[in-house]
Amino acid sequence: MIAEKAVQIAQHNDLALLVGSDRKSFIIRLEEGSQLHTHRGTVSHDDLIGFPWGTQLFTHMGYPFLLLRPSTDDLVRKLKRTTQIVYPKDAGYILIKMRITPGCRVVEAGSGSGGLTLIFAQAVSPAGRVYSYEVRPKMQQLARSNLEQLGLADFVEFKLRDISAGFDECGADALFLDVRNPWDYLAQSHAALSGGGFFGCILPTTNQVSQLIGALEESSFGMIEVEELLLRQYKAIPARLRPMDRMVAHTGYLIFARALIPLEE
Amino acid sequence: MIAEKAVQIAQHNDLALLVGSDRKSFIIRLEEGSQLHTHRGTVSHDDLIGFPWGTQLFTHMGYPFLLLRPSTDDLVRKLKRTTQIVYPKDAGYILIKMRITPGCRVVEAGSGSGGLTLIFAQAVSPAGRVYSYEVRPKMQQLARSNLEQLGLADFVEFKLRDISAGFDECGADALFLDVRNPWDYLAQSHAALSGGGFFGCILPTTNQVSQLIGALEESSFGMIEVEELLLRQYKAIPARLRPMDRMVAHTGYLIFARALIPLEE
Amino acid sequence: MIAEKAVQIAQHNDLALLVGSDRKSFIIRLEEGSQLHTHRGTVSHDDLIGFPWGTQLFTHMGYPFLLLRPSTDDLVRKLKRTTQIVYPKDAGYILIKMRITPGCRVVEAGSGSGGLTLIFAQAVSPAGRVYSYEVRPKMQQLARSNLEQLGLADFVEFKLRDISAGFDECGADALFLDVRNPWDYLAQSHAALSGGGFFGCILPTTNQVSQLIGALEESSFGMIEVEELLLRQYKAIPARLRPMDRMVAHTGYLIFARALIPLEE
Amino acid sequence: MIAEKAVQIAQHNDLALLVGSDRKSFIIRLEEGSQLHTHRGTVSHDDLIGFPWGTQLFTHMGYPFLLLRPSTDDLVRKLKRTTQIVYPKDAGYILIKMRITPGCRVVEAGSGSGGLTLIFAQAVSPAGRVYSYEVRPKMQQLARSNLEQLGLADFVEFKLRDISAGFDECGADALFLDVRNPWDYLAQSHAALSGGGFFGCILPTTNQVSQLIGALEESSFGMIEVEELLLRQYKAIPARLRPMDRMVAHTGYLIFARALIPLEE
Repeated sequence: MIAEKAVQIAQHNDLALLVGSDRKSFIIRLEEGSQLHTHRGTVSHDDLIGFPWGTQLFTHMGYPFLLLRPSTDDLVRKLKRTTQIVYPKDAGYILIKMRITPGCRVVEAGSGSGGLTLIFAQAVSPAGRVYSYEVRPKMQQLARSNLEQLGLADFVEFKLRDISAGFDECGADALFLDVRNPWDYLAQSHAALSGGGFFGCILPTTNQVSQLIGALEESSFGMIEVEELLLRQYKAIPARLRPMDRMVAHTGYLIFARALIPLEE
Repeated sequence: MIAEKAVQIAQHNDLALLVGSDRKSFIIRLEEGSQLHTHRGTVSHDDLIGFPWGTQLFTHMGYPFLLLRPSTDDLVRKLKRTTQIVYPKDAGYILIKMRITPGCRVVEAGSGSGGLTLIFAQAVSPAGRVYSYEVRPKMQQLARSNLEQLGLADFVEFKLRDISAGFDECGADALFLDVRNPWDYLAQSHAALSGGGFFGCILPTTNQVSQLIGALEESSFGMIEVEELLLRQYKAIPARLRPMDRMVAHTGYLIFARALIPLEE
Repeated sequence: MIAEKAVQIAQHNDLALLVGSDRKSFIIRLEEGSQLHTHRGTVSHDDLIGFPWGTQLFTHMGYPFLLLRPSTDDLVRKLKRTTQIVYPKDAGYILIKMRITPGCRVVEAGSGSGGLTLIFAQAVSPAGRVYSYEVRPKMQQLARSNLEQLGLADFVEFKLRDISAGFDECGADALFLDVRNPWDYLAQSHAALSGGGFFGCILPTTNQVSQLIGALEESSFGMIEVEELLLRQYKAIPARLRPMDRMVAHTGYLIFARALIPLEE
Repeated sequence: MIAEKAVQIAQHNDLALLVGSDRKSFIIRLEEGSQLHTHRGTVSHDDLIGFPWGTQLFTHMGYPFLLLRPSTDDLVRKLKRTTQIVYPKDAGYILIKMRITPGCRVVEAGSGSGGLTLIFAQAVSPAGRVYSYEVRPKMQQLARSNLEQLGLADFVEFKLRDISAGFDECGADALFLDVRNPWDYLAQSHAALSGGGFFGCILPTTNQVSQLIGALEESSFGMIEVEELLLRQYKAIPARLRPMDRMVAHTGYLIFARALIPLEE
């Protein structure tokens, strides 16, 4: 079967996901001469480079692991972070609701740890751009470092800025706010968006949602929607298929709206 | 405020979403000289062309509507269809779990009405390709027509084929099966995927899920996951925020796996 | 098999549930000489009286139906109503959270159509009592008529009263408010409850929940809990087990608390 | 306010729930001379007896706690157990769907730790009876001890028996199976139930559900329903109302059916 299929080989500088039989996983960038140290033994990058993706290999202690390319879900879950991350289930839906596609110009604030930034950057690349605002220097530093690590920094302009001063962009296709008080930045957001542009936000509490949608109505936004997604995972055992015992019950409420052109008086 | 923002204008050949105050909506491709007839009056395309996106306009009977670009969610919901469509909530998550990004080569079967095809085509464009297999000529015709309508057909190769004969591709980044009996096509799917490539599937019944994951285990797939997403919509009224009364309770179970390279004997 | 089991016979004055093969159902009180007219033909009560429960019988047009005793769920769903009813899923949980058991004294307001009244009356009978307050005479009339119809009126004292004037009872085991503005009646509720007594409420919007729990904290209530229940129904087909396509997404938020004895100054 | 309300006093032999400010809780039966030792200090039962329910008291180390009667939910959650317990959300719904009310005769197997037994015993008391079958002597011992502890053993007949030999009862109002292989006991269950009697079951996996409903159809059961309940808890903070971060994603699928009288040949 190997002969039949295009064998693609792990190469120097590739991102790799290593998954042990206990499903414990690591994401590394392959570098000649480097090593990964795990509680189940050491893996030399040189022993990975040149192997086909999808291969089972072994640590020096004999523990098996899989050599894979990471999914976007893996990238987000493994991101170095100091903040709550937007979950993949929410991020995927945001892409669809806000039509974030190759070539789009997307504004986001704040950058946070860069979880949503990486998803936006991937989705709009190579021709599009993400303009990512953050007011905390250390946080911006982390997001930038994460995006550089993933090879996506070229598609992002990081801006260290309090967005109450407004965004530099205008005519943006989409703008996403992941901040505590989005209602304070609606005029700025409207100014940055193209006519009819996509506005999105994620908020944890119902009180914030009420406050935001009230403010949106008064700020020339329309088509307001509030939604939430619940992800339920199953134990993948053919003869005993059943949901996992526990699940994440809440990540946040998603709010979407469109920037309208106010009627001239 | 209009002065401050980049005014973007609806032009001949653009896709437009028209939304009435009753939230009833239409997606049209703007053509000089054409007209849209609704139960609330007629709209001449010539009266839309040249207006900024996000503007409120009126039918000849005086009913207001918004002139907007459609979101991906709008495109899928308004697609001409004769089959069940993969819902946007599921499609967005599929993009994230299978890392379907610009430049990817994605195989899917069947084409159905083209709902997932359009989402994949958008996400991989302009450099990537979707290879979309369908065995029913009329269905393929519908999917192709839908993709052409949306200007996305250039990114798709439609193939009229029973996939039990296998796929033409090898080394594909991702492969998605939306068929009743996916367990019958796992060897073919494995052959089409790159090493470690992303496999995905959506199935409505638990019995099918059990059968598929049992077959995946025996067909050199690993990292099997079964998940489902529940979308809950809220009434966006600031002082009376609450979930809608009813919701879609089930679209399908999502199954994801990775194509592994079998150990050499 | 009939011989082996205690055959119980439908008798004059029994409540009966008739269910057609299309799952359309009727609840009637069996009365000699009466008839039920359905779109699938007529059923004479005299033809039901004397038959064992669980039997399949036929209308005069030959359509089959089952002769069953109604469940509590059936009683609630078939209740003659002019208001939203508390759903069985919520009512059952209320019984457990508020320990509503035989012998309890339970206060409720308002009576509404009597849906919750019937569940409380059943659960506390024969020694307990439900004190059911309602301010709208027609509504009280409906609730009373419904409870009489079900033979449960002996366990209920209906009171036509604006509860802002307070409840007659003190030392009640449990008190449930199904009103729009429960925060206006917390002092009255506290006065009616025994020390540590169970307080419960159902509310549709998040704004109401916030307002209520704030007021509870200031009114000598403690152990406040906010919960909601989602009921998902499945298509009961062995080879194609799957959730129903649609579900009720929201009935109400359940709020529970305990009446505390304020510390003496 | 104390003066206005019926003061009810904790007495020797009462069941009491003590809840600390950290929401850590204990259920004890008050006995003169006894003591409860907690990590936050000792509580002498004699210091509780004579106090009104709903009072805040203190451990000898000065930590506050509330003196309350336990809810049914509290009783189940605090039950001494060696097995998975039927959750209160499910138990309440079972009461409603199977019309388990005062005076009913209910059969259950197995007894397990007695969680469902206690709920059934409470609900049918004082005139009804629960017939609780269990094949493991130690498990029966635990269930019996738990019910005695709660003062509910008088309403239960415990039977040490493999139910494949059948139940002693006939004409039971309701029968609930909480066993791994309920399909093996359907003839026995049918024989124990009254005509039209209520059958219920809880099962963790979809495969079991498919097998059971197939067997029910072939065993003279009808009106088969498969349902599940999801309980979502909220953080009860007025200004920051939101769901808890995590929840129980799965307890079990509930299956309900009615015992039908087979048509005579």
